[in-house]
Amino acid sequence: MPDLAPLPTPLDEATEALRALLGDRLVTSGGDRRQHSHGEGLPDAGLPDMVAYPETTEEVAELARICTAHRIAMVPYGAGSSLEGQVAALNGGVSVDLTRMNRVLEVSPGSLDCHVQAGVTRMQLNAHLRDTGLFFPLDPGADATLGGMAATRASGTNAVGYGTMREVVLALTVVTPDGRIIRTGSRARKSATGYDLTRLYVGSEGTLGFITELRLRLVGQPEAVVSAVSQFPSLEAAVNTATMARQMDLRVVRLELLDEVQTDACIRYSKLEGMAPKPTLFVEFHGTPAAVREQAELFHELARDMGALSWDEAETPEARTALWTARHHAYEACIALVPGSRNMGTDACVPIEHLAACLIETQADVRDSGLTAPIVGHVGDGNFHLGILFDPEDKDQRARADALAERVSLRAIRYGGTCSGEHGVGLHKTRYLAAEHGEALEIMRALKAALDSLGLMNPGKLIPEREAPPTG
Amino acid sequence: MPDLAPLPTPLDEATEALRALLGDRLVTSGGDRRQHSHGEGLPDAGLPDMVAYPETTEEVAELARICTAHRIAMVPYGAGSSLEGQVAALNGGVSVDLTRMNRVLEVSPGSLDCHVQAGVTRMQLNAHLRDTGLFFPLDPGADATLGGMAATRASGTNAVGYGTMREVVLALTVVTPDGRIIRTGSRARKSATGYDLTRLYVGSEGTLGFITELRLRLVGQPEAVVSAVSQFPSLEAAVNTATMARQMDLRVVRLELLDEVQTDACIRYSKLEGMAPKPTLFVEFHGTPAAVREQAELFHELARDMGALSWDEAETPEARTALWTARHHAYEACIALVPGSRNMGTDACVPIEHLAACLIETQADVRDSGLTAPIVGHVGDGNFHLGILFDPEDKDQRARADALAERVSLRAIRYGGTCSGEHGVGLHKTRYLAAEHGEALEIMRALKAALDSLGLMNPGKLIPEREAPPTG
Repeated sequence: MPDLAPLPTPLDEATEALRALLGDRLVTSGGDRRQHSHGEGLPDAGLPDMVAYPETTEEVAELARICTAHRIAMVPYGAGSSLEGQVAALNGGVSVDLTRMNRVLEVSPGSLDCHVQAGVTRMQLNAHLRDTGLFFPLDPGADATLGGMAATRASGTNAVGYGTMREVVLALTVVTPDGRIIRTGSRARKSATGYDLTRLYVGSEGTLGFITELRLRLVGQPEAVVSAVSQFPSLEAAVNTATMARQMDLRVVRLELLDEVQTDACIRYSKLEGMAPKPTLFVEFHGTPAAVREQAELFHELARDMGALSWDEAETPEARTALWTARHHAYEACIALVPGSRNMGTDACVPIEHLAACLIETQADVRDSGLTAPIVGHVGDGNFHLGILFDPEDKDQRARADALAERVSLRAIRYGGTCSGEHGVGLHKTRYLAAEHGEALEIMRALKAALDSLGLMNPGKLIPEREAPPTG
Repeated sequence: MPDLAPLPTPLDEATEALRALLGDRLVTSGGDRRQHSHGEGLPDAGLPDMVAYPETTEEVAELARICTAHRIAMVPYGAGSSLEGQVAALNGGVSVDLTRMNRVLEVSPGSLDCHVQAGVTRMQLNAHLRDTGLFFPLDPGADATLGGMAATRASGTNAVGYGTMREVVLALTVVTPDGRIIRTGSRARKSATGYDLTRLYVGSEGTLGFITELRLRLVGQPEAVVSAVSQFPSLEAAVNTATMARQMDLRVVRLELLDEVQTDACIRYSKLEGMAPKPTLFVEFHGTPAAVREQAELFHELARDMGALSWDEAETPEARTALWTARHHAYEACIALVPGSRNMGTDACVPIEHLAACLIETQADVRDSGLTAPIVGHVGDGNFHLGILFDPEDKDQRARADALAERVSLRAIRYGGTCSGEHGVGLHKTRYLAAEHGEALEIMRALKAALDSLGLMNPGKLIPEREAPPTG
């Protein structure tokens, strides 16, 4: 009787070809797969069938050709710090971990730019740059990979001064789903030659191809820095100070709000002294000594006029680090408010004239929800996060958290803003995209179909399923 | 015998439908058609069959539906100031003149933004804003429409300080070739929700659809302004001063170079006093009084260290206006050097570390060509224009001008830059796109096919014909 072994599946064949390409850098064991099934944030997971660790753009291209030939899904993976489920392998397939592509390929102080592989993290890059007088200015909190930051169009606390990944990426190396290697953009600071492919891949969340290398703008380390903390009697006074500073064109490079609940959490978690549980602004100015002194004084004067209770400048680098460390631990401080809880983040961003109203309405929603949900905000950009705490075992709490998050997202859209200023869409924000983009969503679908016709790149992310068949 | 009148052509049918839509705002007479057959720059023209003057986004959408139904080409037309042949109707069809869509729809000082129809010009917008304390900062020289500036990703003298149209456009209303109306982006300063359609249409030169409305960032009128002119013994000294200022992160908002030939032309044309025909930098700082004073002094010190021959600050608004008027008349001053000549512009933009070498090699090319070709540069961005003067009746001169322009464009690409920093591709720069973008050009072709499958939007522009059949 002949040996009736089952025919190899496409997955088997792809696995064999990928193993021939990568050797033991293709891993099919449970530990690596589970670790690559989710990012931060909500616990929704998608288990990949395997994890690949390519080391070069060429290896990624060959991997893509193999996966396309066998119709295997590909999910790019960086530091795993994304918050919206971007890295979950919903259809299985290969999680492509780019963290071994971690070489800084070139730094050009003369043109203020650098060339890095996608797996370099922002802290690694800044450590590398320490002696050059330059730094990479974006700071999303997490030590994300630069490829991941580009893919999610990340920004963070410095964006009001230095822009987002949209602004600081000059050029990309991209591997298409079928394994072609393309270079978008150039090292020129500006260009008017053709469709802006760089900006198309920035924010595409791995749904159009792999970002494998980046050319990034750098900036000079500022000669002088002034940081300060100012506390206010009301959220409105704090927010109005921030928005007026923007309207006056004060050149803040960070302008962060903590509401009274979040300030209280940070005081406890980071043992901050001399602060009250009141709405608080953290600000920072970079520049030449006279310029930052003038800007800080103008801001201080404005804050005083708006009724600020305090103004404390962090004079030394150590004091500044302590200040910003407390700000960066806001997430952990928030969780610590309700031990055992999980944190559902929102990411609304609105035109700054509507920020105060939007935040006050949001605080009323929080009260109505009966949940604890502190607010931190990159208020210079009109962006704020609610950290909605809920007990993951309690269905009612989860439902109230979902309802609160939905109200915040839809309100931002009604105010002419966006449901996500910086975290991206991933899995969890797709439900708001029709409200936010309307008919433009059909253009996004056309782009996806044009550049990933087989739908193999990070399936199930960014673009929602159609609710009804297309009518056009 | 029956009347054998010829059947109406698709063009006849489209004309009839468009006339029903627009009445006497559809013009088929020769004068309007000739006026809409070309922009500025080289004299290549494409005569449209008719010129339409819609007044609303809805009219543009209906026009697009009609043209698509009858397979008629559509060419958006603004002020007609583009330099690369963008508005020539190469396949005939309808030139869609958007200048009657010239309403400022909203100005929001609280969020520092405004909403305009595409036919509003930048000077019209700034006149409208005069009493608000705000201004629209981009200045390409010509009084272009804002829709046209977005379509060509324009920038100009202020880009080093305020960015290009890529940075200042928040959101767009776009009419697709088949007449759908979509809204890209939002009023939020940053967003991470989906593909960046705004940046895709910015710079698309009318090849993907019509930009009919724009939401634009505005900035506060600076409290203090310092402008200055500094002359140098050599081009190298002037350029090195400019690039070092950028490397030192001095916050210039304009940083313009004129080489000795262009300075000489401007002295004669604008009757400038106290200037020698030497390489010259024009600089400007915006901000608070102490900040601009400090920046100007740092720049002055740097210029002196680099051997500057002079440093003259324009203290009054009148003196500043005279200065910048002279700079803006550089094009006319250049033409006046050789009466009867035409000006072929180049638009190279390179990483600033290579700018000095690139300019010195370019001047050597100019000498070798035997032509007169002054240089003006937005050197803060690494962008410069050669104004190559040639006699349009002299085939040999034209050939030498073409060869010189090609050397400049290809050199910029070799230095990691672009053949067009701000004028766009249009008709004349398509020949360099394969060298600049390589395989990425195939992605651009895929986008064009996805969003304009019938090829009706501004045919023959931006994307070059394939040289050989695709192999993939």
